[in-house]
Amino acid sequence: MNLLASALVTDLYQLTMLNAYYAHGMRDTAVFELFVRKLPRERNFMVAAGLEQALEFLEHLRFAPEELEWIKGSGKFPGGFAEHLAQLRFTGEVHALPEGTIFFPNEPVLRVTAPLPEAQLVETRLINLVHFETLVATKAARSVLAAQGKLLVDFGLRRAHGAEAGLLAARASYIAGYSGTATVAAGIRMEIPVFGTMAHSFVEAHDDEAAAFERFAESAPQNALLLIDTYDTEAAARKVVALAPRLASRGIPLKGVRLDSGDLAALSRSVRRILDDGGLADATIFASGNIDEYRVHDLVAGGAPIDGFGVGTSLVTSSDAPYLDAVYKLQEYAGKARRKRSTGKATWPGRKQVFRHTDRAGRFEYDAVTVEGDEHGGEPLLVPVMRKGKRLGAPESLAAIRERAAGQLANLPERLRALEPAASPYRVEIAPALRKLADQVDHAGEEVPALLR
Amino acid sequence: MNLLASALVTDLYQLTMLNAYYAHGMRDTAVFELFVRKLPRERNFMVAAGLEQALEFLEHLRFAPEELEWIKGSGKFPGGFAEHLAQLRFTGEVHALPEGTIFFPNEPVLRVTAPLPEAQLVETRLINLVHFETLVATKAARSVLAAQGKLLVDFGLRRAHGAEAGLLAARASYIAGYSGTATVAAGIRMEIPVFGTMAHSFVEAHDDEAAAFERFAESAPQNALLLIDTYDTEAAARKVVALAPRLASRGIPLKGVRLDSGDLAALSRSVRRILDDGGLADATIFASGNIDEYRVHDLVAGGAPIDGFGVGTSLVTSSDAPYLDAVYKLQEYAGKARRKRSTGKATWPGRKQVFRHTDRAGRFEYDAVTVEGDEHGGEPLLVPVMRKGKRLGAPESLAAIRERAAGQLANLPERLRALEPAASPYRVEIAPALRKLADQVDHAGEEVPALLR
Repeated sequence: MNLLASALVTDLYQLTMLNAYYAHGMRDTAVFELFVRKLPRERNFMVAAGLEQALEFLEHLRFAPEELEWIKGSGKFPGGFAEHLAQLRFTGEVHALPEGTIFFPNEPVLRVTAPLPEAQLVETRLINLVHFETLVATKAARSVLAAQGKLLVDFGLRRAHGAEAGLLAARASYIAGYSGTATVAAGIRMEIPVFGTMAHSFVEAHDDEAAAFERFAESAPQNALLLIDTYDTEAAARKVVALAPRLASRGIPLKGVRLDSGDLAALSRSVRRILDDGGLADATIFASGNIDEYRVHDLVAGGAPIDGFGVGTSLVTSSDAPYLDAVYKLQEYAGKARRKRSTGKATWPGRKQVFRHTDRAGRFEYDAVTVEGDEHGGEPLLVPVMRKGKRLGAPESLAAIRERAAGQLANLPERLRALEPAASPYRVEIAPALRKLADQVDHAGEEVPALLR
Repeated sequence: MNLLASALVTDLYQLTMLNAYYAHGMRDTAVFELFVRKLPRERNFMVAAGLEQALEFLEHLRFAPEELEWIKGSGKFPGGFAEHLAQLRFTGEVHALPEGTIFFPNEPVLRVTAPLPEAQLVETRLINLVHFETLVATKAARSVLAAQGKLLVDFGLRRAHGAEAGLLAARASYIAGYSGTATVAAGIRMEIPVFGTMAHSFVEAHDDEAAAFERFAESAPQNALLLIDTYDTEAAARKVVALAPRLASRGIPLKGVRLDSGDLAALSRSVRRILDDGGLADATIFASGNIDEYRVHDLVAGGAPIDGFGVGTSLVTSSDAPYLDAVYKLQEYAGKARRKRSTGKATWPGRKQVFRHTDRAGRFEYDAVTVEGDEHGGEPLLVPVMRKGKRLGAPESLAAIRERAAGQLANLPERLRALEPAASPYRVEIAPALRKLADQVDHAGEEVPALLR
């Protein structure tokens, strides 16, 4: 059983409901939409990510023999249920925002149209994938905006919530504009550029810090970026200056140094001076250690001579807002629009489309959410990506997705680009046609009229 | 390539350092310890978890052929490096706190003693596994304390950071005292009890709420727990009362209802009254929706008639403190104690042991951290679990780990059991022998004396 592709990465209630659907012949077409109900206070926008993994999951969805055995032996289901599951494949349609698209609350990021059991079963894993990558891409975009073009690298794997989280965080941050990751698995599986320097343990394993630097540079002649804060940062910077000529004479260029603790603003300045005075004006300074977008902003805005940042825990856990209010809701079944009206959790019914309105320069002005088929100006954002369980095209390249994200960030209204909560949120209009449908659903009881299509 | 067991779930710098270690013949014995530097403000203690997954990883550590090919083709390493990696296995020793042990900052939760390259390579994944399970077990223990014996179930998979996070969160919360999880994969892979009810989509897919209830009960006769907040909670409770006699006549017992939104304190009371007045005094009330340990505490302490809670996002993301300051540091190499002294990140050197002092009733009084071999009263907490790369015994059962955690929670000083930050933290003494060793390491330069053993 491959956990990451398993149909049992789901909640038990999905199986319980499937059993009831099969028992009662409820296999009509269902439409579910995945969206975020509201933004965390710390976020002004979101960046869509995770679609590729969601499609991969749907395309290969099936129950493995040992999974079917477990279901039969669990005592939770009647005979015959496992046989239904053995046949189950995803045969539906998917519409989605292309990855890298900026979006806002109440805008579907993904829509599934499929026979009810198929569309129901996949809820848990679809949210699990799209929620997490969107969470990290959104967090990453903030440091990208703060860094003003300086190098950013994902250093977060060790504190990511498991291996898959580390891998997907590398992908999501790369989409948002990071230059790469330290996570090797992301290099081999996703062709994301991989970066790395050295750790304190390397220095500590030597009796002499300068000897450690020399050995590291010898072994990594293309990548001689030396970690200088193990004992005394400025003293170590002087050791680097003393070492550089000997390395140069052997054809090893000193790439730079890394700071990982202390007052990075002050240390970067004093180290810069030591390097410059020692003739190492080309050596770069890379900073890491408890970095987040706020520190990136302060250091960059304050003019600290830092050339790049390793961002770890805060990025991969989205530590100031570690989840989004992402849900996947039934909006139509058997041709009738549906909605839940639970207190504080009511949803807009029906199949929806999002239209984005921009000014002449392409800058976002506002979005409108309406029912599919409603004539409306602006650019429709949801596009078909899967039909009859098959993708409509090859997976998008990460390069194309990165380019989309960069373009969208460039067109974001200025007030939303700040790290602080915007005084006024981005405007997302609910169009009259959608309001009318909601009203019809609420008041027509069992006689909801046919949808606008 | 199985991501979850892959040797490339690591940072690139581990490989860069390994290459240098091999190039310079640095294969002496290294001792690394995994510990947490300080507690988040929102935590008074931690519960150790993740050792089982860490040992599984170490026992099966090897580079897959396609991983070695990637390394050869990456252009980042000289010829011969991949051949070293092809031979690499974990041949070392591990000492650890048994899972379920309560522990505190600066206390090693795991110690690795192995040839330097092996001990270095595994840093990233060991932190990744132990950090996350410990994070969730710690968070879960807080709701266990708040729930005062009421049923708790993990509902978090959809907002967990990936599939592995969902699976490991189910395990970690079960260790801490949860009764089970909604995550089916945790049932099949770890034999954790799996719970589930129904979703709003099930109700919405029917034109009539009462019909949905009846169909669900028919299809899940042992598990007729009905979700009643899709439209109007109290009205739905009355529908349940009306339905119950018909179900009873067909031998289907009504198990209870689930509330998922609104004012749970008020609704649980009004629903309880409706159920009781309708002759359904045995029907239970289960609550979910934005639940965390604070809400569990308020509802339980306030006497709300709720029999159990589904806890999701807040649990699996540890949302108020989504990471711990967990690190893995070189403490000894080639027989010499080591430490880093980076600003704010200095570590205690050498191989250590933790001794716990308790009163006559077994309640924790304080811990002492000292060098291994130092004679000290109290109970030593770190035990050997792996030698020469092989476990010293079969994996502990989850039942045994749960029992240990429950016993430890019962013996926690009262001030640490509260949800609020304790006025005074638990006392962790650094013993004189350890202070002396740190002093020797700092002042002896290259002539650190032999360790106390």
